[in-house]
Amino acid sequence: MTKGLFITFEGNDGAGKTTISKLVYERMLDKGYPVIYTREPGGIKIAEQIRKVILDPENIEMDAKTEALLYAASRRQHLIEKVLPAIEQGKIVLCDRFIDSSLAYQGVGRQLGIKEVFEINQFAIEGHMPDATVFLSLPPETGLSRIKSRAFKDRLDQETESFHQRVALGYEQILKQFAERMHIVDASQSIDKVAEQAYEEVIGVLKHVV
Amino acid sequence: MTKGLFITFEGNDGAGKTTISKLVYERMLDKGYPVIYTREPGGIKIAEQIRKVILDPENIEMDAKTEALLYAASRRQHLIEKVLPAIEQGKIVLCDRFIDSSLAYQGVGRQLGIKEVFEINQFAIEGHMPDATVFLSLPPETGLSRIKSRAFKDRLDQETESFHQRVALGYEQILKQFAERMHIVDASQSIDKVAEQAYEEVIGVLKHVV
Repeated sequence: MTKGLFITFEGNDGAGKTTISKLVYERMLDKGYPVIYTREPGGIKIAEQIRKVILDPENIEMDAKTEALLYAASRRQHLIEKVLPAIEQGKIVLCDRFIDSSLAYQGVGRQLGIKEVFEINQFAIEGHMPDATVFLSLPPETGLSRIKSRAFKDRLDQETESFHQRVALGYEQILKQFAERMHIVDASQSIDKVAEQAYEEVIGVLKHVV
Repeated sequence: MTKGLFITFEGNDGAGKTTISKLVYERMLDKGYPVIYTREPGGIKIAEQIRKVILDPENIEMDAKTEALLYAASRRQHLIEKVLPAIEQGKIVLCDRFIDSSLAYQGVGRQLGIKEVFEINQFAIEGHMPDATVFLSLPPETGLSRIKSRAFKDRLDQETESFHQRVALGYEQILKQFAERMHIVDASQSIDKVAEQAYEEVIGVLKHVV
């Protein structure tokens, strides 16, 4: 393989994206795959600074379009500094959330429209769409009850239930729109089972590509 | 007048935008016009936070598209929180720099393309273009020598001469593309004369509208 792969993990809040993507990462590492795990802002200084502005619980005046532009800016910097150089070196990049999150949260949750949010993200990512996306599927109610038990809630965790319900509808639409790169895993199973299936999906993508 | 007016001031670095726009503001205030003066980020908390990220001299890794998206985000928040409410109240808003600065600096200076930068800015401003723009015209060399004497230089002041020359070419292109709203004032004259002419241009716009 001369060039790597870009694989993202998506799903409603509380579906277990971070837990599962890290378990997949560790298992791939154990098996000797050239893999890295990241999530926006991914330790990139400028992206961290932007993220801080987005998630500050005091920034209640933030307009939805400001938020969408800030996510796109943070995504751009993380992509340029971390994701693309790794792919260029032949690495498999596992990324916890990417463009689909903006389409679901800002496009549908904030009602800006998937098409409009997709366009400003295209300015940011210049066609670097994920090669494949593992979608952790969970009824939004289950996810919401998981978030509620979190001790620290950022500005987005504090959103209304109707916002999170719109996000869930957004993901349904995105699953249809980008069906060819989507790998759906039932996230209501045990963590071990979800991680196992997610791993198998990623390995399936690798075999398909090589 | 049931709705106000939105007037921006543009020009190459060192052309005197801030000095002149403030003098025009004070004179209009003296004459009893319902006028406000602002510039991005304009005291808007979220826009200030974004601006800090953009101008931090340590953020040398910043990608040009990240920068363009951050300016669009800051512009959006300032527009929504400050400019549009004032226009809605019938105020004349004098704004030191706006979309044309992004077209010149990021579109041409950073070579992202005027059309691309215009599009992400349209997402941000939703058609709220200035009613008129006072352009302070000065040979870029003169402006550059003025910047060089500044004690504190932010990340953009530190740019190369070729960058500032591209910005100047960018403004020339913008003057042609948006000729109908442009009011050019020769900024090589004395401050009093430039302020007087800029004031007359703004009053001319008001008379034309009312």
